[in-house]
Amino acid sequence: MIKINENYLKLQSSYLFSLTGEKVRAFQQENPDRRIIRMGLGDVTRALPDVCIKAFHEAVEEMADDRTFKGYGPERGYPFLREAISEGDFKARGADISADEIFISDSAKCDTGNLLDIFSADTRVAVPDPVYPVYVDTNVMAGRTEFFNDDRYEGMAYLELTRKNGFVPELPGEPVDLIYLCFPNNPTGSTISREKLKSWVEYAHANRALILFDAAYEAFIRDDALPHSIYEIDGAREIAIEIRSFSKTAGFTGTRCAYTVVPSDCAAYDSKGGRHSLLSLWNRRQTTKFNGVSYPVQRAAAAVYSEEGQRQVRELVDYYLRNAALVRKELIRLGFDCVGGDNSPYIWVDARSDSWEFFDLLLQKAGVVCTPGAGFGKCGKGYVRISAFNSYENVQEAMERIARIF
Amino acid sequence: MIKINENYLKLQSSYLFSLTGEKVRAFQQENPDRRIIRMGLGDVTRALPDVCIKAFHEAVEEMADDRTFKGYGPERGYPFLREAISEGDFKARGADISADEIFISDSAKCDTGNLLDIFSADTRVAVPDPVYPVYVDTNVMAGRTEFFNDDRYEGMAYLELTRKNGFVPELPGEPVDLIYLCFPNNPTGSTISREKLKSWVEYAHANRALILFDAAYEAFIRDDALPHSIYEIDGAREIAIEIRSFSKTAGFTGTRCAYTVVPSDCAAYDSKGGRHSLLSLWNRRQTTKFNGVSYPVQRAAAAVYSEEGQRQVRELVDYYLRNAALVRKELIRLGFDCVGGDNSPYIWVDARSDSWEFFDLLLQKAGVVCTPGAGFGKCGKGYVRISAFNSYENVQEAMERIARIF
Repeated sequence: MIKINENYLKLQSSYLFSLTGEKVRAFQQENPDRRIIRMGLGDVTRALPDVCIKAFHEAVEEMADDRTFKGYGPERGYPFLREAISEGDFKARGADISADEIFISDSAKCDTGNLLDIFSADTRVAVPDPVYPVYVDTNVMAGRTEFFNDDRYEGMAYLELTRKNGFVPELPGEPVDLIYLCFPNNPTGSTISREKLKSWVEYAHANRALILFDAAYEAFIRDDALPHSIYEIDGAREIAIEIRSFSKTAGFTGTRCAYTVVPSDCAAYDSKGGRHSLLSLWNRRQTTKFNGVSYPVQRAAAAVYSEEGQRQVRELVDYYLRNAALVRKELIRLGFDCVGGDNSPYIWVDARSDSWEFFDLLLQKAGVVCTPGAGFGKCGKGYVRISAFNSYENVQEAMERIARIF
Repeated sequence: MIKINENYLKLQSSYLFSLTGEKVRAFQQENPDRRIIRMGLGDVTRALPDVCIKAFHEAVEEMADDRTFKGYGPERGYPFLREAISEGDFKARGADISADEIFISDSAKCDTGNLLDIFSADTRVAVPDPVYPVYVDTNVMAGRTEFFNDDRYEGMAYLELTRKNGFVPELPGEPVDLIYLCFPNNPTGSTISREKLKSWVEYAHANRALILFDAAYEAFIRDDALPHSIYEIDGAREIAIEIRSFSKTAGFTGTRCAYTVVPSDCAAYDSKGGRHSLLSLWNRRQTTKFNGVSYPVQRAAAAVYSEEGQRQVRELVDYYLRNAALVRKELIRLGFDCVGGDNSPYIWVDARSDSWEFFDLLLQKAGVVCTPGAGFGKCGKGYVRISAFNSYENVQEAMERIARIF
């Protein structure tokens, strides 16, 4: 008899965005003339940079001719893209990551989930709270937790992000094997200093733990003192895997390209204490279960690393950062306590009330959609996330409408 | 301490294509002037159909303008593509599959592996022998076998494809839960009749087993009596998941698009015998661990379903089928026993000798590359697979060179 993976029965329904979506639909139906401004989702709104469009078209044209047609590419991605990444994103910042340590994929979300395949079923996992839900749900599916109880899964360690710690987690009080860190943080928009990140690298060495460092929003960092990559910290190569994406950097949420870095000296252990290369394991996983990213998409992504591409991408990110700065400034002016919005597209706002009530208030009174923090975990209660992914004109109007309520 | 998934230590090194690649490189080095003709890999060689190129460019252009730009799409794929598939690939053949039962992905290989996530760890698996190695390796990684011993993994059931059974497996002699069927078959090129497929559907019903039906090569079927989809058989909706791809149909190996069908009445059970919808489970898996296929790629794939698209795709497949027919005709003329090559791009040849020796002979004496059957499993010993994915001129020359040896 074919049986299901019963760990799926532990999953809570992923109600957050379906519930906000329902509420928005209901409001629109009751107020058909009201123009709703959506600042809830983390999805980009502006066109791909010109350099990407040009490279994309050129690569499609290659696919139109037998002589230049590309069939299966390397599962881990074409060297032209991996080399551009190694130089542009790492060596240029003093981080020693070679092209052979980079794996191109269609999605940071996929990599985040799929990486769990290569670790033991009894891995003890630590996630931030509030948290990007994929970190949690993928581990529940893999059987690394017990049931959900009192807002949390039993068997999972939660690293609290609170005003007290500046929304940067303290080192764990209990032993953990796999640690998720995400900076600039989703959903709080907080950043981590070099010193603090160094303490995490040292913790991982001392405890033979592994850090999954999610740097999907690194392009939004404008403060030169902040690290863009965990590999800017000495010793990180042995204990960290880093995940990046073109989604928020270059507007690829609908185009799909991301990558994961697994340094050659990064290792995990077998039950007898034998040391195994995670690069080899991940390579085996990817060559067996993945077939590489669309060739034209890889060409479009590589265009980001030209001089002109770097200029265009910076301009794109600056546009959203201008939105974020406006949101932040206005909310502070209205007396709200906020984090993020300076080196991040997200602003995390202390709602001074229940986060769903605040969501309802903004929707009903201002026609503005945000995301209730409670949907990201226990520590998100009383907060909302506002996203800067929209047009500047819409953000201006949203802030004017919000100002009128308070 | 971070620990590895020790099931990976059971995996045999995937030496087949690396070993053939090495031998080809060594031969080329010793014979720098010899033009090698590669008929080993299952990778297409001809340009994308014009309709796909046109739709691809148009969609890239949409990404260039804020007003038509697409961010995150639906994880399971855009309705325009799912609806075209439902009509074109299923309803047109009398198979009742709706757009809501179709999940677009970047790769049949990914889906084949990822589907295992939703089943119990103790699932008993039956694979064909010879076999597409992904079926085996992904189950080894998921802990559903013991170690490799005497050419096979212990704990896995092997369904033998032999000359005696016409390279179509007999029903299992032992109880199994998950059965892989692939028709037209890779590597043997054999096909399955309606009657035989019906016996498998009945077996699955009687044993509450699930069939994973891999129909990646269905576009090569030219015999009207043969089923293209398992859903052409009554009762299959309850017990079968079907995997399809644009790779071999429309030349998408480098462009990346595929899909999986999970009918709404397809179910699996929990340990208490409770019935669960696999569509819901797979949807939960995909929305959590996948972010959808590149929008321009989905537009390119949808173009296949226009009237002109259907004509162009048929022409493309006919081109390879003409190659296959030539290979088949010539080998039979030379006295070889073959299967496939009529409704499939693969010809499975009885080498009348060790398959690696035959591979070496073709390479050394004819400069032609094939794939040793032994690399696909125990029952592949003594056979080689010849692929029709090449230019007609190359195939002609290859067959002339082979004729000169025998």
